[in-house]
Amino acid sequence: MERNSTNYILTRHTYCFCRQKNTNIRLTLPVVCFVWQIAMIILFGVFIRYDEESNTHWVETKAHNNITSDIENDFYFRYPSFQDVHVMIFVGFGFLMTFLKRYSFGAVGFNFLIASFGLQWALLMQGWFHSLDPQTGKIFIGIESLINADFCVAGCLIAYGAVLGKVSPVQLLVMTLFGVTLFAVEEYIILNLLHARDAGGSMVIHTFGGYYGLAISWVLYRPNLHQSKRMQGSVYHSDTFAMIGTLFLWMFWPSFNSAITDHGDGQHRAVINTYLGLASTVLTTVAISSLSQKTGKLDMVHIQNSTLAGGVALGTAAEFMISPYGALIVGFFCGIISTMGYIFISPFLEKTLKIQDTCGIHNLHAMPGVIGGIVGAITAAAASESVYGKQGLINTFDFTGDFKDRTVLTQGGYQAAGMCVSIVFGVVGGAIVGSILKLPIWGDPADENCFDDEVYWEVREPMVMHWHGTLCPEFWSNTNLLKGPQRSALNPHYVQL
Amino acid sequence: MERNSTNYILTRHTYCFCRQKNTNIRLTLPVVCFVWQIAMIILFGVFIRYDEESNTHWVETKAHNNITSDIENDFYFRYPSFQDVHVMIFVGFGFLMTFLKRYSFGAVGFNFLIASFGLQWALLMQGWFHSLDPQTGKIFIGIESLINADFCVAGCLIAYGAVLGKVSPVQLLVMTLFGVTLFAVEEYIILNLLHARDAGGSMVIHTFGGYYGLAISWVLYRPNLHQSKRMQGSVYHSDTFAMIGTLFLWMFWPSFNSAITDHGDGQHRAVINTYLGLASTVLTTVAISSLSQKTGKLDMVHIQNSTLAGGVALGTAAEFMISPYGALIVGFFCGIISTMGYIFISPFLEKTLKIQDTCGIHNLHAMPGVIGGIVGAITAAAASESVYGKQGLINTFDFTGDFKDRTVLTQGGYQAAGMCVSIVFGVVGGAIVGSILKLPIWGDPADENCFDDEVYWEVREPMVMHWHGTLCPEFWSNTNLLKGPQRSALNPHYVQL
Amino acid sequence: MERNSTNYILTRHTYCFCRQKNTNIRLTLPVVCFVWQIAMIILFGVFIRYDEESNTHWVETKAHNNITSDIENDFYFRYPSFQDVHVMIFVGFGFLMTFLKRYSFGAVGFNFLIASFGLQWALLMQGWFHSLDPQTGKIFIGIESLINADFCVAGCLIAYGAVLGKVSPVQLLVMTLFGVTLFAVEEYIILNLLHARDAGGSMVIHTFGGYYGLAISWVLYRPNLHQSKRMQGSVYHSDTFAMIGTLFLWMFWPSFNSAITDHGDGQHRAVINTYLGLASTVLTTVAISSLSQKTGKLDMVHIQNSTLAGGVALGTAAEFMISPYGALIVGFFCGIISTMGYIFISPFLEKTLKIQDTCGIHNLHAMPGVIGGIVGAITAAAASESVYGKQGLINTFDFTGDFKDRTVLTQGGYQAAGMCVSIVFGVVGGAIVGSILKLPIWGDPADENCFDDEVYWEVREPMVMHWHGTLCPEFWSNTNLLKGPQRSALNPHYVQL
Repeated sequence: MERNSTNYILTRHTYCFCRQKNTNIRLTLPVVCFVWQIAMIILFGVFIRYDEESNTHWVETKAHNNITSDIENDFYFRYPSFQDVHVMIFVGFGFLMTFLKRYSFGAVGFNFLIASFGLQWALLMQGWFHSLDPQTGKIFIGIESLINADFCVAGCLIAYGAVLGKVSPVQLLVMTLFGVTLFAVEEYIILNLLHARDAGGSMVIHTFGGYYGLAISWVLYRPNLHQSKRMQGSVYHSDTFAMIGTLFLWMFWPSFNSAITDHGDGQHRAVINTYLGLASTVLTTVAISSLSQKTGKLDMVHIQNSTLAGGVALGTAAEFMISPYGALIVGFFCGIISTMGYIFISPFLEKTLKIQDTCGIHNLHAMPGVIGGIVGAITAAAASESVYGKQGLINTFDFTGDFKDRTVLTQGGYQAAGMCVSIVFGVVGGAIVGSILKLPIWGDPADENCFDDEVYWEVREPMVMHWHGTLCPEFWSNTNLLKGPQRSALNPHYVQL
Repeated sequence: MERNSTNYILTRHTYCFCRQKNTNIRLTLPVVCFVWQIAMIILFGVFIRYDEESNTHWVETKAHNNITSDIENDFYFRYPSFQDVHVMIFVGFGFLMTFLKRYSFGAVGFNFLIASFGLQWALLMQGWFHSLDPQTGKIFIGIESLINADFCVAGCLIAYGAVLGKVSPVQLLVMTLFGVTLFAVEEYIILNLLHARDAGGSMVIHTFGGYYGLAISWVLYRPNLHQSKRMQGSVYHSDTFAMIGTLFLWMFWPSFNSAITDHGDGQHRAVINTYLGLASTVLTTVAISSLSQKTGKLDMVHIQNSTLAGGVALGTAAEFMISPYGALIVGFFCGIISTMGYIFISPFLEKTLKIQDTCGIHNLHAMPGVIGGIVGAITAAAASESVYGKQGLINTFDFTGDFKDRTVLTQGGYQAAGMCVSIVFGVVGGAIVGSILKLPIWGDPADENCFDDEVYWEVREPMVMHWHGTLCPEFWSNTNLLKGPQRSALNPHYVQL
Repeated sequence: MERNSTNYILTRHTYCFCRQKNTNIRLTLPVVCFVWQIAMIILFGVFIRYDEESNTHWVETKAHNNITSDIENDFYFRYPSFQDVHVMIFVGFGFLMTFLKRYSFGAVGFNFLIASFGLQWALLMQGWFHSLDPQTGKIFIGIESLINADFCVAGCLIAYGAVLGKVSPVQLLVMTLFGVTLFAVEEYIILNLLHARDAGGSMVIHTFGGYYGLAISWVLYRPNLHQSKRMQGSVYHSDTFAMIGTLFLWMFWPSFNSAITDHGDGQHRAVINTYLGLASTVLTTVAISSLSQKTGKLDMVHIQNSTLAGGVALGTAAEFMISPYGALIVGFFCGIISTMGYIFISPFLEKTLKIQDTCGIHNLHAMPGVIGGIVGAITAAAASESVYGKQGLINTFDFTGDFKDRTVLTQGGYQAAGMCVSIVFGVVGGAIVGSILKLPIWGDPADENCFDDEVYWEVREPMVMHWHGTLCPEFWSNTNLLKGPQRSALNPHYVQL
């Protein structure tokens, strides 16, 4: 493209040159990708094997376990949910972040990159912590491992939402490397040591991921971010693209919360609860969004994000007997709190606490995640044999082995403890990782180039200059206006065609 | 955004002020959302419980029924289809309606809102009519209830298509409240009293929903709708977005028609028939669309809509032994009729019958639904033991209990009777509900503001004025032209960037 | 639309008139659609019946085979994968091709048309070759037949990628008719006669489809294609739309490679391998893409396409015990090779071999397909009883019946032979079909109208003229410039609004 042959483009490049950071990632990005991928291959070669349901010895396993039909393979219990979760990770998270007018490539593309790396590293980290076979020293993977790897990646993608548009892909890969590592450890503490239940990850995924991202964003605070203000809004079609992400997350959240719950009633119940909770959230989100504007107009930011809060908050309790109206109540309050978060808390976080949260993950993941942890603890503590049945209670909370004497009250306490662990891991881990990402070697963009795909992507299409919300007339009569400092005096808006 | 600082925008707002209706929904919308959601919570608390396959007593149910494996839980028979149906409701219907150049937020967003409300109300209404346990006074829900709730919502979303862009979200919620109520009653009459079969809802969903929407649109007729003509077309990208809706509806329609059919061969056959019928429809739609233009060009309106008619028309007969070529024949004629509907019948409806049908639901749902009802009646009447087998015939038409002596001919008659019930409920119900919606309290837009997201949504992006299909040169040389009555003389087209 | 009332549009039409080919398809397209669809109905009536799992006699089949539960119906093993494959065919392939700035309707719409026709013809062709019952002379279809029909269509859609924007819909239908025919024959030779394994179709689908398309494109070479250069690039939103296609292909590829593998461990293992291979491909694609630009920027063309190469290359070996790290290695190299293909090989093909490959199917399908065939041959030849188990080896390679004495080495040889068959069928078949498509009766566009939806679609939206990458100033000051030959001197770019 001959983009450089126009005054406008040349001018812009010249103009930016003096302030521009070095965003050349031609060395770092390929090196990181190659080295890490080769490391993955070696570590997989050493550690990862097919489990007994996915290797060719299944025919003998079946005979040995008196399994009469292939349909008993765990694959058929979990594959539909797995694919839904997979869509949430790649299309859901990816497109949800395309709302910015000129950062769709980065939203979808970097989401794609870090999820693809993260899931490999997650299989290893989760394998070492959860399922390393002591005899063979191997990790045996099956469909449930893939779901857990996707879950682990979700935590890092949530964190990406806080720093969207302000970091380089290399920083994102580093953030994912440490995020997955921290995730596997906190998950091990919460699920295995504390024996808390958290099938949909209100605590281990959303609370951890939310605070991890917020802490990183706090360390990477940019006081001059207003210099890229022209790029921060959405345009009409970018908001429509974002709704693709919202809807796929919303529709498939029942699969997310039920993907690794118990076979049979466990998966069935988790789906019903999540379905209902999310429906309830939509109505209260719309209500608060409409209340927040003088004429009752709705704000796409709320519809795109807060409608999902009910799913987050049911991550822990969806598999419990929270009852259908209980799920509706959780969704009801999450819609209100999350939307009010966008209206009141996000500006407060930015101004007072110096946390710049591009996607508002505090309102969509961190707060609803904490609510979900609390709801889970209360629901667990309130469980009773009369409601669950004797065996049902044991199955639901897995009161077997070392934990067979645990009472529901104790369980509630451990659930609450798990909540705290995930917050601590998120905040402390995020602060440390943020410090690493602050090193000036990662190729992050200058303040005035944030939220702009042109920094890391070949963008083939010209942008048209706009002035005060409409095409700038001076542009046509006198392109010289665009040379030099007058440009900022005009406060132009660039919107895409 | 500083949109108000341009002449154009100021002018536009001033200009419109005198005629504008009060579209302020800051009071009504939140009140309706809150009150209805709280009512849902209370009613769910009183009535709705998990069924035996989704509560923790499943372990005892299994033992009691000699079920050996969790995979026998109805969840595993229906969950993949349920998720497909869920995608059709939220992404399919939502994005199908984004074809208008400036109503994508309303299409996807209001669809999201009314579906989320409707499915809750549907669980209650359908529960009261179909599955209220007389002993406990409770409604027990499982995965099949969720599918039925989504189906019920589909009827209302079809009706939304007729009034798209011309009503307020409050009107839509009212329309959904009554729509779901009427749906549950007509469904009860058709399926339970008449004992007609209609697994994919040609009659109960599409015919009812279609006529319900058309009748409402007839009552709400706007003689001056041409005042918002500039907003009624599509733009390039809005047509592409609409194809997302079309394709997800088309691809998942086999799941729609098979979601609640009999386990085993019932679901299997319904998928095959729908898959084939839809494929056939695409070819005849393309043929007629090409024939309708002087140079054989295709029209996206036809491709987006008429390609789906075959799925609608197989809603009743898909589970029958209509045979693969039978499904192809149904699809063949539906593609022709539906496309001709867009070319000839829609203009006739608008001019002569004063029915303004934004999405052409008459061609996509009402007509093909009626065809589907007739096909179902004929196929049922022509069923024979030689084709179905003795037990197969009983299973397919559920000739058990009170209906065990019914013949296939009688069944065909009752199918036809069901057809009439759905039309009557749609037309009469729609006329009544339309009268309610005509009250001047719902915040509906003025004739010249129809099909414009700016009425109910915060839209952050400027529009550029176009004149005679290209950017208006006068705009740049003399912005004063835009002040006052000259504007309408110019007949400007607003198209989004 | 009053598009003709502006100088610009009038000029453009006048200007093009002299060179324009006759693209009127008002006769040919409807005739082809009608005749072929009627032929399908007749042939289906003669040949196609429900198989024993999808007809009402299933109740007797079950009893006869001592099947205790409906969940044993093949439908429940394969339906979730089928729906994923269906999404890949219609949304995946369709949207992947929307990257061109002004060919989204053609990409999604023609993809829709030819897939809908192709799957019907595929059911017949594959039925005659693979499953014609010799006693009854009928083809019995079930869910696996539908998957195979979708697979067959995939081969033709791959070929469409090479000629995207340069052919008429009639040519595409002809290409699909012959493509499906050739596919069924080569598939019969490879899978039945040579008894090669190729569940995900590295050979039968991707290699064949790739070379079929390339050979057609070679025959249809247009030396003056540069005349439509202004239409060949992407714009910002068209690249975002294309990512919808990319991601749905990427996410559902595990379902593609596992859809028709053995029940149980076969499907389970194929999913794990494909999931891992694809993840690995993303990292190396990003690495090479970044390396290829001076400043390390990423190119959407690579991200949209090369990230999928790992799935193609695991089409044969995914069901084997290639082991998780083996899958990573395959993905690793495919990402590198495919991306380098876009950088180095595509320009070479166009300049030296005169093959114009719009979507780069050589890099995404042909090369990775060949790699997949080789990997499959090697993995098969290296299989051993110690890894697979005695029965596992027999099951995996289906060493039963006539092939029960085959060794793994022989099997490796036959796999390699299958590879060659698919290349030969693709190249020779494509050359012949290309010659047929060269006849001047199909309504293909002139060189300067390629990649433009206006040729075959009613496009309602104006285009704005751009010059040197930004809005052309002369356009506003002097529209006369656009009349006549000066237009080409200006080398204008048309970009959509």
